[in-house]
Amino acid sequence: MFSKSQIKLIKSLSQKKYRARHGLFVIEGKKGIFELLSSPLELHSLFTAEDIFDAAEEKTYLITEGDLKKVSNQQSPQTALAIFHIPEVVQPKAEGLQVALDDVQDPGNLGTIIRLCDWFGVEDLICSQGTVDCYNPKVVQATMGSISRVKVHYLDLAEYLRELPKERPVYGTFLEGKNVYREPISPEGVVVLGNEGNGISPEVEQLITQKLNIPQFGKAMTESLNVATAAAIFLSEFSRRKPTGK
Amino acid sequence: MFSKSQIKLIKSLSQKKYRARHGLFVIEGKKGIFELLSSPLELHSLFTAEDIFDAAEEKTYLITEGDLKKVSNQQSPQTALAIFHIPEVVQPKAEGLQVALDDVQDPGNLGTIIRLCDWFGVEDLICSQGTVDCYNPKVVQATMGSISRVKVHYLDLAEYLRELPKERPVYGTFLEGKNVYREPISPEGVVVLGNEGNGISPEVEQLITQKLNIPQFGKAMTESLNVATAAAIFLSEFSRRKPTGK
Repeated sequence: MFSKSQIKLIKSLSQKKYRARHGLFVIEGKKGIFELLSSPLELHSLFTAEDIFDAAEEKTYLITEGDLKKVSNQQSPQTALAIFHIPEVVQPKAEGLQVALDDVQDPGNLGTIIRLCDWFGVEDLICSQGTVDCYNPKVVQATMGSISRVKVHYLDLAEYLRELPKERPVYGTFLEGKNVYREPISPEGVVVLGNEGNGISPEVEQLITQKLNIPQFGKAMTESLNVATAAAIFLSEFSRRKPTGK
Repeated sequence: MFSKSQIKLIKSLSQKKYRARHGLFVIEGKKGIFELLSSPLELHSLFTAEDIFDAAEEKTYLITEGDLKKVSNQQSPQTALAIFHIPEVVQPKAEGLQVALDDVQDPGNLGTIIRLCDWFGVEDLICSQGTVDCYNPKVVQATMGSISRVKVHYLDLAEYLRELPKERPVYGTFLEGKNVYREPISPEGVVVLGNEGNGISPEVEQLITQKLNIPQFGKAMTESLNVATAAAIFLSEFSRRKPTGK
């Protein structure tokens, strides 16, 4: 059974301000917990209905599924919930392929993009301060464990881009951009993706050095691709041109 | 104000069996309704708090946002809701690039895939009988209007693939598949995508003529890509190689 203070802590961690205050976040589900336990992330506490984890005894609490239901954020019932410490991230190095998000709002989109970064070996994900928090429970869930391997940096995006070395290209997707399949692009650069409704903000747009576009092969009625979908296509396109591609 | 029978009808249409019985589905939100009104789909009735639509008067009902809240499936409040007739679809022709889904379960994934088909000019989406219904309100919402332009066919997927002309390639994604970026692939074929948890079923696997894989550029810890993300990368890869690509 959960103690009152444990319930209070878990519930509070669904809010960003409490995650920041405690430096903790919640993950639900066996699969994700296994992944995070085998990562460098530090466990705070583990609540489980099945004694199947190899975690420190003093941090493990056996509970029932019924207990879990009371604190769960999930629609489908889980048998385990864990609290991990939010890792500190150092300033991102300006190297390799990086992805930057300009106020992406949807937790599912951010989670999918983190998973994509992991798949395509993108180590640093740069987020504007207005981007949804990556330790939001819905984001954590959508990353399927990738949250432990991709470094997510929240910073002033325009300032970050302004201070990049001049030779480092900054790509962005625009309707008037050039065909991403035909343009020379370098996997040593930053790919900026914009907000779901408004795209890339004017301030950040000024810092884009190469405007790209995913050409539409259909009858050109759709307005735009979903941001996570666009991220998938960009990362695929940049990665396949890497000389080191498997 | 809604009549009692209208409320009953709208609520019933959140269930597949009533959508099938009435041949109707619901869409919420101005943007989607505008798109569907300008499509060949036939309007059944329109409920709106703003008199901004160019629809037949006898099918239009002015309501308040409060009325709408009572019947809405949406988390964020909308100002309009419409009911459309489900169109009849004819047997798909075996030509061009087609996408087939083997028991995709998540409404958001199906909606995103329909939107992708629209973007990449894929006219026919073939779904196994176990795939989530495309007129599910969450799917309709995620398609952002593309539901009116892509023909979605529900049929026995194995039987459909078995009866294709022999020269038509059937692609599927498998861990042991060959690098999609390097294999010769033809945009005259079928791309099969599997269920979120179990992938492509053994029966369908036997009918795949070319096994493909999206290579992982990261440290190979992630298990797989989300099915909608994989669809985005496959469609991008097949489309960019089309001789007619813009």
